[in-house]
Amino acid sequence: MAKLSDASVKKFPTLRGRTVVNLFFEDSTRTRISFEAAAKRLSADVINFSAKGSSLSKGESLKDTALTLQAMGADAVIIRHGSSGAPHQLARQRWMSGAVINAGDGTHEHPTQALLDAFTIRRHLKENNGDLNGVRVAIVGDVLHSRVARSNVLLLKKLGAEVVLVAPPTLLPVGVESWKVKVSYSIDDVISDVDVVMMLRVQRERMDDLFFPTEREYSRNFGLNFERIQSMKEKAIVMHPGPMNRGLEISADGADSARSVIVEQVANGVSVRMAVLYLLLGGATSRDLASQIGALS
Amino acid sequence: MAKLSDASVKKFPTLRGRTVVNLFFEDSTRTRISFEAAAKRLSADVINFSAKGSSLSKGESLKDTALTLQAMGADAVIIRHGSSGAPHQLARQRWMSGAVINAGDGTHEHPTQALLDAFTIRRHLKENNGDLNGVRVAIVGDVLHSRVARSNVLLLKKLGAEVVLVAPPTLLPVGVESWKVKVSYSIDDVISDVDVVMMLRVQRERMDDLFFPTEREYSRNFGLNFERIQSMKEKAIVMHPGPMNRGLEISADGADSARSVIVEQVANGVSVRMAVLYLLLGGATSRDLASQIGALS
Amino acid sequence: MAKLSDASVKKFPTLRGRTVVNLFFEDSTRTRISFEAAAKRLSADVINFSAKGSSLSKGESLKDTALTLQAMGADAVIIRHGSSGAPHQLARQRWMSGAVINAGDGTHEHPTQALLDAFTIRRHLKENNGDLNGVRVAIVGDVLHSRVARSNVLLLKKLGAEVVLVAPPTLLPVGVESWKVKVSYSIDDVISDVDVVMMLRVQRERMDDLFFPTEREYSRNFGLNFERIQSMKEKAIVMHPGPMNRGLEISADGADSARSVIVEQVANGVSVRMAVLYLLLGGATSRDLASQIGALS
Repeated sequence: MAKLSDASVKKFPTLRGRTVVNLFFEDSTRTRISFEAAAKRLSADVINFSAKGSSLSKGESLKDTALTLQAMGADAVIIRHGSSGAPHQLARQRWMSGAVINAGDGTHEHPTQALLDAFTIRRHLKENNGDLNGVRVAIVGDVLHSRVARSNVLLLKKLGAEVVLVAPPTLLPVGVESWKVKVSYSIDDVISDVDVVMMLRVQRERMDDLFFPTEREYSRNFGLNFERIQSMKEKAIVMHPGPMNRGLEISADGADSARSVIVEQVANGVSVRMAVLYLLLGGATSRDLASQIGALS
Repeated sequence: MAKLSDASVKKFPTLRGRTVVNLFFEDSTRTRISFEAAAKRLSADVINFSAKGSSLSKGESLKDTALTLQAMGADAVIIRHGSSGAPHQLARQRWMSGAVINAGDGTHEHPTQALLDAFTIRRHLKENNGDLNGVRVAIVGDVLHSRVARSNVLLLKKLGAEVVLVAPPTLLPVGVESWKVKVSYSIDDVISDVDVVMMLRVQRERMDDLFFPTEREYSRNFGLNFERIQSMKEKAIVMHPGPMNRGLEISADGADSARSVIVEQVANGVSVRMAVLYLLLGGATSRDLASQIGALS
Repeated sequence: MAKLSDASVKKFPTLRGRTVVNLFFEDSTRTRISFEAAAKRLSADVINFSAKGSSLSKGESLKDTALTLQAMGADAVIIRHGSSGAPHQLARQRWMSGAVINAGDGTHEHPTQALLDAFTIRRHLKENNGDLNGVRVAIVGDVLHSRVARSNVLLLKKLGAEVVLVAPPTLLPVGVESWKVKVSYSIDDVISDVDVVMMLRVQRERMDDLFFPTEREYSRNFGLNFERIQSMKEKAIVMHPGPMNRGLEISADGADSARSVIVEQVANGVSVRMAVLYLLLGGATSRDLASQIGALS
């Protein structure tokens, strides 16, 4: 899919006639347009609906929304929901036969983000042939509220990477020891030892005195700034799921440094989501895909 | 169109190059995406605009909005408007040459809903060869505010069905006797005699003490629950235009019962709207359509 | 492009596989759908996002938004922004390689509006062979806040037209003498001498006592009404960028008079925006275009 995305005409007939619905109960322009671009690149029809404020979200149960979308012919529903587990409900109940893709649920998971992150790391660690075995990844910041952190811990560990969470104790979830990853309260203790520093967004709307005293103090203690970047290993990279708060969890020179692969993450996000849609909807074998790619090159 | 919708690739070139505008002055995600799916399945370009809160709805007259859409090349405008008669104005004045489709206006009409309801009833009453002559339909609930009720009364009567309205007197319009249908104040008096029970949505935002004392009382007196469903004729069906208030006008077991054709209504809605767009924009003869369908089967 | 727009099937494969993003930080349904119709007519994929209220507009810098859209494969970004100069920033910084199209920025410019206005004037002044040399244009109303006025002054002067601004002193910008156009405080002094009267929209939300005493007084002194239209030159035309406030800056008989080319402006807007997208994204020579048009006729 990444190869397809580099073609001059980025449009493939693979999912022609398929309907993909973006069912977003929370705003997320960034994730929504990434999925929309992915689906359109594969020629699917995309129907957006922000359920926020619509009658669907008000009166209607998730069940009836699912039955409705199914009846309208949705082949896949991409759901972003404020409640942890809503996509699981949608997928596990027999409300719809179409594919359900979790685009972020509550403080639970954001699986396509983890897939695109793992893909990005693999492309950057060529000396390992893309193998994540033994790669060390620090995830830094508000782990407590982060579905990005949860999905990455699950996926990166499965792929053999070693994850260390770095956060003040107030921003770590109760029971984090069951995640079976290392935990550190100091970014400076780990930064020179890891291959990847993944900064988490500070979700200002969720922050108050309970979590950290001031933004300035958070930034000083946990922000990624020029000096910290200087202390990283030679080929180590900097990641961020976006949108960034420049000057808070990451400084401008951190965001723009040569180590930063943040923009590549966005590009890879479209490719990874194309792959997810292709595998769930395409019904084609990987041989078919290989021949399509072959025809391109 | 229903056959086309069952094809594996639901995409037909019929309306390629035609532009359909969803002009929604009121929110209605459900109706909007039904029309959008219908138009896209026929390869039309769809431009959505929620006029709610936009400059078009604020400063501009309906006339200028129409002239603007016409000038931009809209071949059809699908309009949902809070004022009864707005689509009529749009269609009758010579503001635009394109087709105007009423997607619900004020407390007046919602014609495509009635078409999909009639189509759904016909498909379920096969013993009559789909003939609605003599079929008995109860429309239950807030008839006063319901455009669904008004459009269904007109269409079902025209097709030969016998309609009885069931509602508390406060939720029946003044002058309902001119509609020339039966009226009953008790669902239990009619439920065992009808072939179709069409429940209307309680529009909570419009309800207050003027209309009924409490939701519980309404539900007990006019809601469709398990016992009432048990008393229905053997092949009688349950309909609802959606979105449902489960537990208010219809119980969960009512909504999910084997008699319920509510989900089919949604699917038929897309087919019926494809037919409406096809007839208004396609310019083709029914022979052409037959040959397209023939090519499919 | 205007010829293409007259074809029975208004769909051309020119920009197939190109992605156009509508990045609107301010509402403008009218401009947005004009660009959307233009892009779709050329088969580009269109991704809309109203940045108003989205996370992109809140936390994220314009730079990161640009980098994100670039990474997602946007070939063109059409930006409407409340800050004068934002599109310039987007285009001049090396944040994205795609095209940047200004759809209105602050009180600065609205270039495609000026292009469509100039195109409309040229089509109506055939005796000059479409040459604007010596054509006299009055721009009437709230010049102070109007990006339409600024872009038109620049373009019309470059094309040889003579512009006179007509407004109360409170609605003229400080330093207007540097624009090198005539200024008048009285519409009646100029109306019988000009070939074009371009009325500006009164932006009610920006108006208060500082600018004019009452709407009625404004309308009497600067509005285009029947008598004023009677006093215009025989072939002179009336323009308005829309949406109109009928009864304020223009009377209903003014808007609907035979001199009014307001609806043509809207139609020409789609054609001109097709041309802008074609020239920026098409990469084809004008010979290619000529052959496409030739194939049509």
